[in-house]
Amino acid sequence: MTSVYREPLYDVAQLGHTELRTPDLEASARWFTEVYGLYTVAEDRDRVHLRAWNDDVLSSLTLVASEQSGLGHVGWRTVSPQALDRRVAAIEAAGLEGRWVDDSFGHGRAYRFTAVGGHEMEVYFETEKYRAPAGEEPALPNQPQRYDPHGVAATRIDHINLLVPDVPASRAFQEEVLGFKLRERLEPTPDTEVGAWLSLMTKAHDLALTREPADTDGRLHHLAYAVESREDVLKAADIFMENGTAIEVGPAKHSRTQGFFLYVYEPGGNRVEVFAGGIHIHTPDWEPVVWNTESGGRGSAWGTVMPASFMQHATPPLPV
Amino acid sequence: MTSVYREPLYDVAQLGHTELRTPDLEASARWFTEVYGLYTVAEDRDRVHLRAWNDDVLSSLTLVASEQSGLGHVGWRTVSPQALDRRVAAIEAAGLEGRWVDDSFGHGRAYRFTAVGGHEMEVYFETEKYRAPAGEEPALPNQPQRYDPHGVAATRIDHINLLVPDVPASRAFQEEVLGFKLRERLEPTPDTEVGAWLSLMTKAHDLALTREPADTDGRLHHLAYAVESREDVLKAADIFMENGTAIEVGPAKHSRTQGFFLYVYEPGGNRVEVFAGGIHIHTPDWEPVVWNTESGGRGSAWGTVMPASFMQHATPPLPV
Amino acid sequence: MTSVYREPLYDVAQLGHTELRTPDLEASARWFTEVYGLYTVAEDRDRVHLRAWNDDVLSSLTLVASEQSGLGHVGWRTVSPQALDRRVAAIEAAGLEGRWVDDSFGHGRAYRFTAVGGHEMEVYFETEKYRAPAGEEPALPNQPQRYDPHGVAATRIDHINLLVPDVPASRAFQEEVLGFKLRERLEPTPDTEVGAWLSLMTKAHDLALTREPADTDGRLHHLAYAVESREDVLKAADIFMENGTAIEVGPAKHSRTQGFFLYVYEPGGNRVEVFAGGIHIHTPDWEPVVWNTESGGRGSAWGTVMPASFMQHATPPLPV
Amino acid sequence: MTSVYREPLYDVAQLGHTELRTPDLEASARWFTEVYGLYTVAEDRDRVHLRAWNDDVLSSLTLVASEQSGLGHVGWRTVSPQALDRRVAAIEAAGLEGRWVDDSFGHGRAYRFTAVGGHEMEVYFETEKYRAPAGEEPALPNQPQRYDPHGVAATRIDHINLLVPDVPASRAFQEEVLGFKLRERLEPTPDTEVGAWLSLMTKAHDLALTREPADTDGRLHHLAYAVESREDVLKAADIFMENGTAIEVGPAKHSRTQGFFLYVYEPGGNRVEVFAGGIHIHTPDWEPVVWNTESGGRGSAWGTVMPASFMQHATPPLPV
Repeated sequence: MTSVYREPLYDVAQLGHTELRTPDLEASARWFTEVYGLYTVAEDRDRVHLRAWNDDVLSSLTLVASEQSGLGHVGWRTVSPQALDRRVAAIEAAGLEGRWVDDSFGHGRAYRFTAVGGHEMEVYFETEKYRAPAGEEPALPNQPQRYDPHGVAATRIDHINLLVPDVPASRAFQEEVLGFKLRERLEPTPDTEVGAWLSLMTKAHDLALTREPADTDGRLHHLAYAVESREDVLKAADIFMENGTAIEVGPAKHSRTQGFFLYVYEPGGNRVEVFAGGIHIHTPDWEPVVWNTESGGRGSAWGTVMPASFMQHATPPLPV
Repeated sequence: MTSVYREPLYDVAQLGHTELRTPDLEASARWFTEVYGLYTVAEDRDRVHLRAWNDDVLSSLTLVASEQSGLGHVGWRTVSPQALDRRVAAIEAAGLEGRWVDDSFGHGRAYRFTAVGGHEMEVYFETEKYRAPAGEEPALPNQPQRYDPHGVAATRIDHINLLVPDVPASRAFQEEVLGFKLRERLEPTPDTEVGAWLSLMTKAHDLALTREPADTDGRLHHLAYAVESREDVLKAADIFMENGTAIEVGPAKHSRTQGFFLYVYEPGGNRVEVFAGGIHIHTPDWEPVVWNTESGGRGSAWGTVMPASFMQHATPPLPV
Repeated sequence: MTSVYREPLYDVAQLGHTELRTPDLEASARWFTEVYGLYTVAEDRDRVHLRAWNDDVLSSLTLVASEQSGLGHVGWRTVSPQALDRRVAAIEAAGLEGRWVDDSFGHGRAYRFTAVGGHEMEVYFETEKYRAPAGEEPALPNQPQRYDPHGVAATRIDHINLLVPDVPASRAFQEEVLGFKLRERLEPTPDTEVGAWLSLMTKAHDLALTREPADTDGRLHHLAYAVESREDVLKAADIFMENGTAIEVGPAKHSRTQGFFLYVYEPGGNRVEVFAGGIHIHTPDWEPVVWNTESGGRGSAWGTVMPASFMQHATPPLPV
Repeated sequence: MTSVYREPLYDVAQLGHTELRTPDLEASARWFTEVYGLYTVAEDRDRVHLRAWNDDVLSSLTLVASEQSGLGHVGWRTVSPQALDRRVAAIEAAGLEGRWVDDSFGHGRAYRFTAVGGHEMEVYFETEKYRAPAGEEPALPNQPQRYDPHGVAATRIDHINLLVPDVPASRAFQEEVLGFKLRERLEPTPDTEVGAWLSLMTKAHDLALTREPADTDGRLHHLAYAVESREDVLKAADIFMENGTAIEVGPAKHSRTQGFFLYVYEPGGNRVEVFAGGIHIHTPDWEPVVWNTESGGRGSAWGTVMPASFMQHATPPLPV
């Protein structure tokens, strides 16, 4: 066994940030700050940089004014400068041509590339941390920002779900090039992988890839922030209800990842999740779980019916 | 910055198991199974092998009949066979002489050594996983065992706290040789480090080292299992109360790690914690937090008074 | 205002117990004790008397072997012997003929009658309390029984929902004769009251009356026990899932009562709810809430789709 | 038994409001609104009228500028105008001379009297309810105000604890005259009742009376608002910590009432509690629990040490 064991790779540390496009920057920014509970760290005419109170990075979400909703890019932070070099080499060895970008808000130079499946991604290491202004330091120094909850009080960026035309191809790319570990696969019938859940360290997932139902690529299914407890997801549902934010489905429990979920749409049209819990995978030789008709099929854990929109809608929306 | 950045090491994956000594094996085994909520996976005259329902390893705790309470050994599981070889090489390069042990329950060959501070430890990779008996499979295949809670329903082994005569020396050893990341340090006055919290991946801690108040070494402060939520720690307090298990302190919130804690003594005399939450550290360049009088001192987060026993008692107890 | 104010009546204290019929007494009793978490206090060939750990009465549920599922009777406990006499006088003044029953398990003489809508009910005062056996007393003397959770650990009988052919008639009867306070009404269009939620003291409801969709009467929609928190309802869902108990709908939040719900079927076919929370009504002059298309309609609070079975199924089932 | 059974009285419905004195009205009002999470409904130079988001009355707390901290008065709301007349007759029959007050904010005429023990109280029926402004109605019409949590988000007025020189005398007065039900008594040794917990309907308590340690009367031990869950009390502790509000003791569990508690001081010096849970008493013939050395003594449920200040401090403070 020892001789052929392939070592897991720990070169990428975390989902550092994402960029979302919105056709109504002002409404999206207001919703993310007042209802979802994020904080604005910087903004200009076209962009608003946001953070959750417990994000260790300075900004985990940038909203960009755009004609359409959808994903701008996803930023993966490496564990070291050396790991960044290694990942860039691997990307290029895989035949992709990326480019270095050096003028981003909140972090250092990043290597930008289009992943298999059509999404813009970047890898980078150097990042700016949040420093509380004088007089607003948190009571406990092992926390980046005071706990001063408002709205949903989203705690920390958690994961992103992207639609891809060919799940096995995109999944294999992420495993090979960035070192993602495959945790679970949805494969209703043999050789029809329609979903893959992948993680960097020990979380249930940092990245999910699900099959694009339309003839397009590069679309976003959802972006998720974590809250502290399932009770906080329940409170979020009430807060969304009070604020007129339409709930698509939830709160309920996923079969995959066992996370507790709640999906809504932000005013720009992007689907956003409030997530809690999920399995933790500490074992280094995890055997990916295959979900098929025998092992429990597609449904959510307790039988919650996922609406058709959940399978069909993504951003940007398809041309009519 | 890039040229001198020291890369974090991810060679050790998890706290795999511990061995505890008890002068009353039967009472300890009954308490751990009936009150703490663990499951017996095997036993013989001298030993009882236990697991929590969500442990991925087969057995995370072995109780050994012994004249005195205290720690038998701690087992750290590496991420690969190659990582095991690297860690053994590092241990030996540090001048320690260990030995290979090949007859342990539940896992493959392990390299056993005495860490700086006097505790028996081992590193190993191959491990037996728990397989549910036919007909008792969990409903969700991404979970090792059915959720059938009884008692405290401890969920998963979490961390261990060991007393060491020289915290900086033991801490530096663990950082250098096993690749632990230092997260927090308790240093009431400059150059008097009396506590260190260390982790392997992204947990608040897998190992804590605190200063031995007596003229001895190798003693155990406590072993901790996690439960799912802070509410579960509160329920645990009621269950301990109903079962006559003396609560030493808690439930309350630690300043270090921000975990929610509850300390009790098992019938063999070892201190056991029920733990929930704690910060998650995804950033790879975490700057260790130093707790001194300026940053908030020693207390628990909300001012809970830690009893004198918490600072003084450990196992084995000192000779009178 | 003062001169015409009708005083609220507080003659009935609590839902004391219910009797459920089951065609499989053994399976029902096993499910209620092992999965739902109740305790058997007495049994004979045809009946099993159960209690929840925090019920103040000795037994809150009797299962009776029967050809069909459905309700046996509902027992309402008065606040005093005098109040019992007053309620019996009111029942008889309303033109109903009941009878005194004096051989029930766990409580004293009761006046049994058929309520408007066809359900057997009784009012009584004297009741036997649970006394913990010597050596099994709870740690806190303000609690009837030790907290020793297993399964769902249902905490206390909460409410019952009955199908009635004519909601306004049945509701008015309960208000007039037993002193129920009307809290909420479901009236999709004017003069079509299809649901009424009624309470005795300050709970969200002790009794719900919803419209019988078939040409029959006396049927049971569901019986509900409370648990301590919404998190406990979520845990219950996992426990039901592990035990193969089919979840009809939930966990989710009711609009009416704001309770957090989870509906399943016990092996005898009766629908059983796990309930948490719900509004508390301390104001004595509560203005009943009317739910119609304008005020938010029929749905659950967060948009959970109630399955058709929830509207159609009841016990006993209709002849095919 | 039947012939001598004394019927419980349900003439008083709820703790309607309290008035607190504060030497720093501005700081107290800021703390109650920004940290404790109440809402201002009206104010003038000397008074600020506050409500919790789920209070059914318009205002449950009035802060009054005063030289000293302490209680202004406590308002008990009856279940009807007739019940108000009955209670006034009972107060006067007990030899007390009160007076009608007819100019209070938020409620109708009230009968004001000095209770045995020296506290100003009033009974009243007519009250103003909260009506959400147009456009700010809650999503669910069975709730008075939108759920838009900030700070601790105290949910609803819960209970008040008053120090009295002679507990049995004050307790008997409240039982006889207002119809309070005695739930629990603290009586360390026979005939030394030092605490009494009393309730109106089914809550664990609406009023607690504990022994005044000094040679004075009319002092306040604490005022308590409820939150939805124990988890919310834990969150409150973090919020107080972040805002520099000193925590006296908690979060922890009371033995009496089994409520989950957290005590702090508002800037005016009055002790305020955040409370969750507590037993519900539905049985009409509850036998009051006597806590003495045999039944478990004085401590909190899990052994939390109550600081000396908890036994000694009250408002107004004693002259030095």
